Amino acid sequence: MNNFRTFDPSNLLCPVPAVMVSCASETARPNIITIAWAGTVCSDPPMVSVSVRKNRHSHAIIRESGEFVVNLVDEKNCKALDFCGMRSGKDVDKWQACGLTPMPALNLDHAPAIAECPAYLACKVRQVLELGSHDMFIGEIVGVQVREDLFEGKDLHLESAGLVAYNHGVYQRTAEVLGFFGYSVARPEVLERRMKQYKK
Amino acid sequence: MNNFRTFDPSNLLCPVPAVMVSCASETARPNIITIAWAGTVCSDPPMVSVSVRKNRHSHAIIRESGEFVVNLVDEKNCKALDFCGMRSGKDVDKWQACGLTPMPALNLDHAPAIAECPAYLACKVRQVLELGSHDMFIGEIVGVQVREDLFEGKDLHLESAGLVAYNHGVYQRTAEVLGFFGYSVARPEVLERRMKQYKK
Repeated sequence: MNNFRTFDPSNLLCPVPAVMVSCASETARPNIITIAWAGTVCSDPPMVSVSVRKNRHSHAIIRESGEFVVNLVDEKNCKALDFCGMRSGKDVDKWQACGLTPMPALNLDHAPAIAECPAYLACKVRQVLELGSHDMFIGEIVGVQVREDLFEGKDLHLESAGLVAYNHGVYQRTAEVLGFFGYSVARPEVLERRMKQYKK
Repeated sequence: MNNFRTFDPSNLLCPVPAVMVSCASETARPNIITIAWAGTVCSDPPMVSVSVRKNRHSHAIIRESGEFVVNLVDEKNCKALDFCGMRSGKDVDKWQACGLTPMPALNLDHAPAIAECPAYLACKVRQVLELGSHDMFIGEIVGVQVREDLFEGKDLHLESAGLVAYNHGVYQRTAEVLGFFGYSVARPEVLERRMKQYKK
């Protein structure tokens, strides 16, 4: 039996997504905020949540525009991801500082996507919940684009992007594929055929 | 410049946590449900959200008890994780089927933790939001325990647990540490000293 140590009640859900959220409004130039307090919250309609402290520069921008873009982050963009969590858009143009390029996001009026990221989810704010230190913005996903080279024919292989997760203070690359949804009950021939494609 | 392909608006936030949520109530025996639609939503108080379809067996149990436990999952428990997402607690005792052991969770009355998992977060439901296909349970974290061997002295090294992420249809192990929170602006000597401990 495992031995356990009691730890302070704290945010130990791991791994969580490590993403760059981009935003802009009629009155604010585009900004980027790093978010690990994000999650998928509904399949239909497709919705994500991102939690942001009230005093963050991006909080007011998202409040004003009702829009944000969740940009997925791969290893190549990990340093920019960290930097955008360390500096405020009040002081720094993070696009310029990190060499990132804003590009129009599908179905949004203001918030741009980050052209260097492997994929983005364009979101419209449907609800805002005040939870304490953070406000949770619940966004409906209204547009998605993914880097062309992550497809094989019609199949999207996001697992090959080397996406970054946040794990209690560190950024970790997602690597080895352990199985696919349903693999524990798959027939042996299906298991073999499908797992083969992930052994690269 | 990257080329992008437009994709249906869908749940493409990746990676997301792949966790086993355990629950029980006065009238229902303990059950386990696999959840990838989970996230950290607030730092203070520490809160997580888990989204569950209304027709799932665990939905009624969590509704009744107002409790759930988020169990982190490592490679060793990945097959059980998948299995618990494939079968219903109406038909199967998943604890027995997967060889998992319920153990009391801190500060909860009914929901047990899974003794074979590397860590758990005991949660009390503070809000339930009906979003569409899924109801989002927002839980305050009231108790945390972590496997003793993941500590070095007082320092918790969750990154060494090999936790599992869900990435658009597949389970992936979190592996190589790319950096720590703040590494993009760290002084060279701090960067070198801290990164050394992750090269194992």
